[in-house]
Amino acid sequence: MLDSVRIVLVNTSHPGNIGAAARAMKNMGLSRLVLVDPERFPDPEARARAAGADDVLQQAQVVTTLEEAIADCVLVMGTSARDRRIPWPVLDPRESAGKVLDQLAELPAAPIALVFGREDSGLTSDELQRCQYHVHIPSNPDFSSLNLAAAVQVLSYELRMAQLAREGLPTKMHKVETTAIHNEIPATAEELEHFYAHLEQVLVEIGFHDPQKPRQLMPRLRRLYGRTGLNRMEINILRGILTETQKAVGVQAAGERRS
Amino acid sequence: MLDSVRIVLVNTSHPGNIGAAARAMKNMGLSRLVLVDPERFPDPEARARAAGADDVLQQAQVVTTLEEAIADCVLVMGTSARDRRIPWPVLDPRESAGKVLDQLAELPAAPIALVFGREDSGLTSDELQRCQYHVHIPSNPDFSSLNLAAAVQVLSYELRMAQLAREGLPTKMHKVETTAIHNEIPATAEELEHFYAHLEQVLVEIGFHDPQKPRQLMPRLRRLYGRTGLNRMEINILRGILTETQKAVGVQAAGERRS
Repeated sequence: MLDSVRIVLVNTSHPGNIGAAARAMKNMGLSRLVLVDPERFPDPEARARAAGADDVLQQAQVVTTLEEAIADCVLVMGTSARDRRIPWPVLDPRESAGKVLDQLAELPAAPIALVFGREDSGLTSDELQRCQYHVHIPSNPDFSSLNLAAAVQVLSYELRMAQLAREGLPTKMHKVETTAIHNEIPATAEELEHFYAHLEQVLVEIGFHDPQKPRQLMPRLRRLYGRTGLNRMEINILRGILTETQKAVGVQAAGERRS
Repeated sequence: MLDSVRIVLVNTSHPGNIGAAARAMKNMGLSRLVLVDPERFPDPEARARAAGADDVLQQAQVVTTLEEAIADCVLVMGTSARDRRIPWPVLDPRESAGKVLDQLAELPAAPIALVFGREDSGLTSDELQRCQYHVHIPSNPDFSSLNLAAAVQVLSYELRMAQLAREGLPTKMHKVETTAIHNEIPATAEELEHFYAHLEQVLVEIGFHDPQKPRQLMPRLRRLYGRTGLNRMEINILRGILTETQKAVGVQAAGERRS
């Protein structure tokens, strides 16, 4: 479905970034990469950082100008980190993905370009003016310049999220409903670990659990308790129960010995 | 506001990934990095890839075990690419950010950990069981393993988006309202360029535009037309107007010469 979307990298300096961008694209289900006048390509570093997305690199189209890269596109968006003297329609990555999916819904085969500039200086004003929209990744104003492949990752991720939503597909493998406990002091990981250790000990003591034949008992219990978001009071209650169980088992054992 | 959120990287092999993760964090307004038993750290490669996020690296805490890294945390989430034999509460990155912000709203100072595993094998089952939630980045099932720093980028980006939304802050620098034109064949970039060239020519011919003193006229016009999302029919109309203008100017000029 995202086959009509091309990622256009303009004048990239570091081949490693081209490879990392190809990997990010393939991770998110994109495949069309267009390189405008790259400094070094193909290059072993691109291939190494692609980490298996070799097909994206092999099919990458290399052109001389941005014009060639976007000539047939019906929607062109350019990433921009800087504020501009002339304000332009600016989208955040989520809105950008929404607009791309809207366009694909109308004309699935019509090409769309997401354009990314140079590592050090981004896109020129002239290049940005060839884009209908600018996409701004919300970033720390004091440290706003993302790595090129990181920017490709964010926009590609939003495209995948939008695509899954439109197709009614889940955004994750499976889901277990969770219940939040409010207005309580949540237990820390350390408190939880003490509880799990105590629980396991008691389960062994009562003969329910054999660490030699664990049958995934503890993982299942961890999942159960982890999911509920235990608070400190509840941990205290549970550990109180465990302590009382230990006492009772001791009494029972003592009683059995007596009988 | 995100000061209570720590990024925990477990047993990282490549120092470049630590640096790239630090950069992604700082870009998104995060600062607390905890490294569990990294193979090489500190390292010049980490510093190079941090690209200015040296402060995040310098303040990074190095510990021996995951337990130490998360002991005081009230919420621990671990990233997981694989399907698990035992299902666990799984969140997508957006839900994960929502849950983190919920927790921060209740107890702003209580530490929260987002845990990332090894480059090649992720987190072990034991490590994942220490997390209340697993976070799954929706990825291509045939190529699902993201680069470590790319995964940090995605989760950090969602945190920043969620934070800006909660604080009522804009996710981008400025916004111009856009109007979509539906059920029409959109113009291609090439058709737009031909139109802009034609327009500029006519503006010169009618004496409105002096390319030597451009006063940002063309960028402003490009912005205006770019924003509207011109379709092919409209382009034809506009170019028809331009052609007729040229004819009329020719007639007028001829008329002036006659008078």
